[in-house]
Amino acid sequence: MTHPRLGVCYYPEHWPETYWRADARRMKDLGIDIVRIGEFAWTRLEPSEGAYDFGWLERAIEVLEEAGLKVALGTPTATPPRWLVEKMPDMLAVDRDGRPRKFGSRRHYCFSHAGYLESCARIVTALGEKFGRHSAIVAWQIDNEFGCHDTVESYSAAARAAFRKWCRRKHQTIEALNQAWGNVFWSMELSSFDDVDLPNLTVTDANPAHRMDFQRFSSDQVAAFNKRQVEIVRKYSPGRLVLHNFMGSFTAFDHYKVARDLDAAAWDSYPLGFLERSLNDEDFKLRYMRVGDPDYQAFHHDLYRGCGCGRFWVMEQQPGAVNWAPWNPAPAEGAVRLWSHEAFAAGAEVVSYFRWRQAPFAQEQMHEGLLLPNSAPAPAFAEVKRVAEEIRKLGLILQTPRADVALIFDYESAWAWDIEPQGQDFSYSELVFAFYRGLRRAGLSLDVVPPCADAVADRKFVLAPGLFCADDALVRALQRSDAVCLVGPRSGSKTVDFQIPGNLPPGAFGQLVDVTVERVESLRPGAFVAVENGAGALIRWSEALVLGNEASVELRGVDGRAVLARRGNRFYLAGWPDAALLDEVLRRCLDCASVDGALSHPDIRVRDNGPLRHIFNYGPEAVDIGSLLQGRDLLLGDVVLEPCGVAICRLPNAIT
Amino acid sequence: MTHPRLGVCYYPEHWPETYWRADARRMKDLGIDIVRIGEFAWTRLEPSEGAYDFGWLERAIEVLEEAGLKVALGTPTATPPRWLVEKMPDMLAVDRDGRPRKFGSRRHYCFSHAGYLESCARIVTALGEKFGRHSAIVAWQIDNEFGCHDTVESYSAAARAAFRKWCRRKHQTIEALNQAWGNVFWSMELSSFDDVDLPNLTVTDANPAHRMDFQRFSSDQVAAFNKRQVEIVRKYSPGRLVLHNFMGSFTAFDHYKVARDLDAAAWDSYPLGFLERSLNDEDFKLRYMRVGDPDYQAFHHDLYRGCGCGRFWVMEQQPGAVNWAPWNPAPAEGAVRLWSHEAFAAGAEVVSYFRWRQAPFAQEQMHEGLLLPNSAPAPAFAEVKRVAEEIRKLGLILQTPRADVALIFDYESAWAWDIEPQGQDFSYSELVFAFYRGLRRAGLSLDVVPPCADAVADRKFVLAPGLFCADDALVRALQRSDAVCLVGPRSGSKTVDFQIPGNLPPGAFGQLVDVTVERVESLRPGAFVAVENGAGALIRWSEALVLGNEASVELRGVDGRAVLARRGNRFYLAGWPDAALLDEVLRRCLDCASVDGALSHPDIRVRDNGPLRHIFNYGPEAVDIGSLLQGRDLLLGDVVLEPCGVAICRLPNAIT
Amino acid sequence: MTHPRLGVCYYPEHWPETYWRADARRMKDLGIDIVRIGEFAWTRLEPSEGAYDFGWLERAIEVLEEAGLKVALGTPTATPPRWLVEKMPDMLAVDRDGRPRKFGSRRHYCFSHAGYLESCARIVTALGEKFGRHSAIVAWQIDNEFGCHDTVESYSAAARAAFRKWCRRKHQTIEALNQAWGNVFWSMELSSFDDVDLPNLTVTDANPAHRMDFQRFSSDQVAAFNKRQVEIVRKYSPGRLVLHNFMGSFTAFDHYKVARDLDAAAWDSYPLGFLERSLNDEDFKLRYMRVGDPDYQAFHHDLYRGCGCGRFWVMEQQPGAVNWAPWNPAPAEGAVRLWSHEAFAAGAEVVSYFRWRQAPFAQEQMHEGLLLPNSAPAPAFAEVKRVAEEIRKLGLILQTPRADVALIFDYESAWAWDIEPQGQDFSYSELVFAFYRGLRRAGLSLDVVPPCADAVADRKFVLAPGLFCADDALVRALQRSDAVCLVGPRSGSKTVDFQIPGNLPPGAFGQLVDVTVERVESLRPGAFVAVENGAGALIRWSEALVLGNEASVELRGVDGRAVLARRGNRFYLAGWPDAALLDEVLRRCLDCASVDGALSHPDIRVRDNGPLRHIFNYGPEAVDIGSLLQGRDLLLGDVVLEPCGVAICRLPNAIT
Repeated sequence: MTHPRLGVCYYPEHWPETYWRADARRMKDLGIDIVRIGEFAWTRLEPSEGAYDFGWLERAIEVLEEAGLKVALGTPTATPPRWLVEKMPDMLAVDRDGRPRKFGSRRHYCFSHAGYLESCARIVTALGEKFGRHSAIVAWQIDNEFGCHDTVESYSAAARAAFRKWCRRKHQTIEALNQAWGNVFWSMELSSFDDVDLPNLTVTDANPAHRMDFQRFSSDQVAAFNKRQVEIVRKYSPGRLVLHNFMGSFTAFDHYKVARDLDAAAWDSYPLGFLERSLNDEDFKLRYMRVGDPDYQAFHHDLYRGCGCGRFWVMEQQPGAVNWAPWNPAPAEGAVRLWSHEAFAAGAEVVSYFRWRQAPFAQEQMHEGLLLPNSAPAPAFAEVKRVAEEIRKLGLILQTPRADVALIFDYESAWAWDIEPQGQDFSYSELVFAFYRGLRRAGLSLDVVPPCADAVADRKFVLAPGLFCADDALVRALQRSDAVCLVGPRSGSKTVDFQIPGNLPPGAFGQLVDVTVERVESLRPGAFVAVENGAGALIRWSEALVLGNEASVELRGVDGRAVLARRGNRFYLAGWPDAALLDEVLRRCLDCASVDGALSHPDIRVRDNGPLRHIFNYGPEAVDIGSLLQGRDLLLGDVVLEPCGVAICRLPNAIT
Repeated sequence: MTHPRLGVCYYPEHWPETYWRADARRMKDLGIDIVRIGEFAWTRLEPSEGAYDFGWLERAIEVLEEAGLKVALGTPTATPPRWLVEKMPDMLAVDRDGRPRKFGSRRHYCFSHAGYLESCARIVTALGEKFGRHSAIVAWQIDNEFGCHDTVESYSAAARAAFRKWCRRKHQTIEALNQAWGNVFWSMELSSFDDVDLPNLTVTDANPAHRMDFQRFSSDQVAAFNKRQVEIVRKYSPGRLVLHNFMGSFTAFDHYKVARDLDAAAWDSYPLGFLERSLNDEDFKLRYMRVGDPDYQAFHHDLYRGCGCGRFWVMEQQPGAVNWAPWNPAPAEGAVRLWSHEAFAAGAEVVSYFRWRQAPFAQEQMHEGLLLPNSAPAPAFAEVKRVAEEIRKLGLILQTPRADVALIFDYESAWAWDIEPQGQDFSYSELVFAFYRGLRRAGLSLDVVPPCADAVADRKFVLAPGLFCADDALVRALQRSDAVCLVGPRSGSKTVDFQIPGNLPPGAFGQLVDVTVERVESLRPGAFVAVENGAGALIRWSEALVLGNEASVELRGVDGRAVLARRGNRFYLAGWPDAALLDEVLRRCLDCASVDGALSHPDIRVRDNGPLRHIFNYGPEAVDIGSLLQGRDLLLGDVVLEPCGVAICRLPNAIT
Repeated sequence: MTHPRLGVCYYPEHWPETYWRADARRMKDLGIDIVRIGEFAWTRLEPSEGAYDFGWLERAIEVLEEAGLKVALGTPTATPPRWLVEKMPDMLAVDRDGRPRKFGSRRHYCFSHAGYLESCARIVTALGEKFGRHSAIVAWQIDNEFGCHDTVESYSAAARAAFRKWCRRKHQTIEALNQAWGNVFWSMELSSFDDVDLPNLTVTDANPAHRMDFQRFSSDQVAAFNKRQVEIVRKYSPGRLVLHNFMGSFTAFDHYKVARDLDAAAWDSYPLGFLERSLNDEDFKLRYMRVGDPDYQAFHHDLYRGCGCGRFWVMEQQPGAVNWAPWNPAPAEGAVRLWSHEAFAAGAEVVSYFRWRQAPFAQEQMHEGLLLPNSAPAPAFAEVKRVAEEIRKLGLILQTPRADVALIFDYESAWAWDIEPQGQDFSYSELVFAFYRGLRRAGLSLDVVPPCADAVADRKFVLAPGLFCADDALVRALQRSDAVCLVGPRSGSKTVDFQIPGNLPPGAFGQLVDVTVERVESLRPGAFVAVENGAGALIRWSEALVLGNEASVELRGVDGRAVLARRGNRFYLAGWPDAALLDEVLRRCLDCASVDGALSHPDIRVRDNGPLRHIFNYGPEAVDIGSLLQGRDLLLGDVVLEPCGVAICRLPNAIT
């Protein structure tokens, strides 16, 4: 029986050694248990090639341990030193335009450069040998935010050579590759794997199958890069948790695949920065500018819990204004507390704030921390203290929820529709997130899962919007299951080779619902297909279905077309629903699945986990949440929940 | 006396040979006569250098011929094989930024690369020798859509060397070039033709005269490339029609010049894709999203009929949603039929649909065809069948219209105002198209012609808006003619060397109307010069005229300036007219020319050709067209014309 | 006692020699005294290396002198000849993306290329030897518009080598550089100065301290380039005024530093082009499209008078439509006259029109002059004649105003907030200009000054908005002074090394006002912090202040925060004020300083200088200006001042 804990990101190398002891004491006093360190310190650990200097780090860890803190140690491979780049200039990644991505910030490396991989193995081995069995070390973080700054794809010579090998391994013969990619089209047929090039700088669109394989390759290179370090760390540091801190919204590599080699997932949660960068409209951004999108954090908690097979941390939690969004407002009073509780409600083991003290120099000097640069407490300090006290007082126990409702999120689908949107605003992430928001606004707690048979077993309701390819095992699992399922739009519309299935879309899903898609179209903003009885409309994307004998029309367009088709408890949605249509579709599916949502106020969100119901107010006004309590007393918070307020009550059906 | 025919684009190399016979039979049954094949098949025709494999193509042609079909054979030079690029990597074009435009899609070649031209001559010769006299072959298509994907200009070493030669040939001495370009300005004077560089990557704007010559050169390279293949085809395949399929909206090379070497022009008509990509406003795009711009197709029919000296095909007709516009809606029911009839009304010899069966793979897998990927009929199939029956039943006879009204469209002018817009929204194509739309909305059928004396002879009304340079022969022809003519804005404002004429704009047109332009200005959106009596306003562009003794003011601005000047039946328009002013100006000119338009409903368009009047409804509601029939019976369609409806009646003055 | 004079820019090399005499006579007749020539004529002065041809220039100067004109001679180094680029191709600058910026327009050189600097010294020496003591030459212009077309920064090998030297000179040791830049962050530590690279093409943001030093270096290179030529000119041409024509709005190099080596500053004033390119909203641009921003010219007159230590020219004054803005309208009738008087009112010694005759060729053929290409007078001709007569009749005497109010404008601050805006719309130039406009709309005449102790001495009111770094000498000067001062937002928020000060922002300004900034945030459009009592709001940027004992809250936000803090006559403004708040803040400061503005109509502007008050009407309607005359008679203009009208009266307190 473990309890959730608080953490903080700390850079002893940025501060005089004389600061360390007081810092450690204040952390402990604040309620911090875990300190993440080391992940950008390569030049301090190895100032010149092979000349390791681990003494300072050893002393820093000692100081932390003496204060009663545990350490998550980062491998420093996101920031290779200048001397390494001088030694092997071709380790730099190359951008889409063919330009080397130079030294001077971070992540300046190509995942396919063998020499750099060796160098990483070397420094990680040295760190492992030195610190692997240190009593303070409870976890390792591999590298930092893979993919940040658009660094998954590289168009370097190293990447091209590795891609050729990857293609040979996958396709075996060049004829098979030509066949899989459909290279007969436009005379793109290749004579040997040495003819395979990277899909950049082509005159017009490269072959989508070519791009898809390049994306798979690029993702695999990240996974291999991570795995190599994981193996070293496991060897030298047995029993410690091995993590990576993923960054939300990044889809250029398959987070499930990388996480498969880890013990748990972690992610970096910056609600205000993410909101500013999001595609939400201006009114929405203004309304939530100081508290963040009410669903964005929850979606990622659920996603990374899925990646980590139930285990996840928030490795970096925004504690104040950041420096990297178009605009960087300060969080509302209470927002940092709210975000922390939201994470714990979703099962986070650790919430770790980024960073302890604001750095007065370099790129992130405008990124707030728990302390000001002069060591005075920053506004978040008191909120973190309150959170620490609350989780202690509540005696919160770590729970890994498993929800009745599973929403499939698939990285290959994100690549597919990025490669071939067909309509300019067909974004897979947006589509899935719209479904997530719809379910959460209905008061549901859910799981975000990969498109595999295991993940959908024992569910009451499974959703698979926009799923690129109908995997046979997945389809069989859905066929065997009693779960209600909702597929479409665009689900199963391609084979794994990025071709239209021989039986037409939705491929194998067609057997499930007994429908065929005969025509698809994308719709510009303002265009729509209205649904009968005022039940909203299709926007952005619409499909013309042909129904088999087993299928019936559940919702119909005013032009007569089938908008929602049904065969038993399986539904196919023939387009991108606006909010009204989505609500109607979900209502019908939830009815069918006998799943009840805690219907809710537009600014209120609910997270049920184990015996507890957590309630959050993202809005600017206090809201009466009495109806959500079902008569139970509040363990935390008030019935009239203030802005940024958090309330917790016991669930009616929980074992008390 | 020939009849218009239907065609289709077919890729036997994409399908199992076992499909071919059934495909051919279905084509014939559908009413298809002509099949275009071969234009992207180089790797199948020559899998490695010199190893030709023509057997499959021979068999495919045989199968088609046996079904009673004729063939238009394409030269495959738009898609050079990978092995050729490996052999001569410098055959790739280089983009404006200096980056080679790599293999992996199509059109990856530089028009100036001698080695590639040789390779093209070789494959075309081989094809000519093999198939030139084949009884099924009735036409050849050279390459495919010159200029597509912005491929006219190349900034390669090959292009630079060729441009230097071109400059030497044109200017003879470097002093003459310095003089023509005005290189004394900013010390740009060159010492020899080896100093001539390409006009990319300059610190600020390159000399417009330099850019103009580079554009002329680039256009000439396309013409030379085409001509070389035409000559080979003519030699080996006498008596066949030699065509190229131009792409509408492309102005980077002179289509008249290229067409001069052909027997007829062809173009590729994608009404929905073009509309989406157009500069029309959002409301317009929404209104016509499933039927296309009511004037766009007609403009290009008239343009390419002009290019082809009266003869043109539609080589690729959109039959369903395409894959390449920002959004890709499906055509309205009846739209494919409407487009087909619109083409025949304008004199098209063949309307050929792109493509027979939707490909399930590669770049165009989302491009609909007449069949679905699984060979079931796509929605357009039935419409094409109906068109085939209608033209058979009507006994339509091919007519080449020659209209009383001629609108000049000039490629050099498009380059000139692209190089020197002076106001950000001064687009020559938009300007000419505005005049075209104004005339067509007034119910007129017209010709689009090059700026040459021949083309304006025997007209009642000639329009020359925005014509870069007042060619002496053209001005003399207009002087000799009784035709009403309307010139301006900006017409004749440059010499052929891209300098301001010594007698100021409108250059030689000044003699025609007796006006001088003393000042021009461009006007930001929202700014305008209002015309007296509410007759609209000048927008975007306005000119200050000085009138000679022979000229009078026909329309005046509220500030007193001359907006429309007149000398007899010649008019000068001193700015860019808004819709109201344009209507007023055209009304006065048409009155003067005694030309009557069939005044019309905003969604209705009329095309008179030979003895027949064709009437089209582009709108979403049925419209009573009784007033357009002048008492004649309908040969096709109803007096209350449904959306996408087509009506045909005999013209009152036609020889019956 | 000198009088202001008129000038014109002339290019004898563009015209037949036979034109020159008549041109010179017409200039003199028009009232022109000074003719600027020669600045783009390198190929005519040195057609091939070392082969000078100065004869034509000598004859041109002679012709001008004979007509009674004086000459300002330009050095031709902004347009190196093609033969020089052929000789040393690496003299070209390299852009951010690593591409050489090619020959074919102008300013195609890297300021760090030693070979090019030598070539410049050679041609300038030759010109100096030839013309230095010529009786007609009264001034020299060095090069032309440094920085135009974004040419200050170069990423060439020459620039990199020079930057390394510059860093070594500044930081002495690499450890010191690492410390100053905070390179410990992200392991950016360097081992030697040979590791220093240019801050382009980094994976994500380069270190702001790195960028700041690169900007300082780039600016220093411009200053050194200028200084080298100044020294040569001084040596060979003693007693002549040495100038450079700066371009308004350009902030990439420090104009004060470059001007320090000159005798006076000059600038090129294009009111309509600047307005079109500005960030003003569409309504504003429409309202002033033909007359320009009412404050923009005045700001730059005041700035360049500050650069020139009291002396400045307008070297190029727009006389008609230009060719380089997105839209290029014609000036309103009277606008050219208004601009001329506005310059003289601010103390301009010379207003010189660009250009005499419109060139019919090359890049600027659409740029109007005083004559049309055919030598007929252009619309501005008559206005210039009127100005000449007016300044003669008025007997205007050159006055160098020194105002009670000084507004600090600092180039380093412009770089700092460009490097680290933190909010997308935090533009230093916009911020300072907003304060300038606020003061000028209140009817004040002011000085724009650098952030140095001298410049703020003897003032009644000093403003330092957004000043990057609180220089100690400046702070001491303000402490010693009785002047009211207003600092903030963001002032003093960094050390000179681009780090957050140890005592937090506003650094040393904190002692002045006794406040500390604990938190800053940027606000997206639509977000604001309202001020109590309806006194406007903070937009874009807001700060959380902690007040010391000496400070009090002068204005408070509705949320209770301090918006304007005060300590005696020193104020700190904690954010970016909207127009209403700015007016309120200025009102309080001006009251405190006992400075009275001539309150004014929104379209009217006032400039007091010496004994005279100048009044301008930038609006489209006539305005009664009686209240501004304080009973004095008008020396020029009418009490009801027409659009574009200029009025002059004697100041009440002037020595008459």
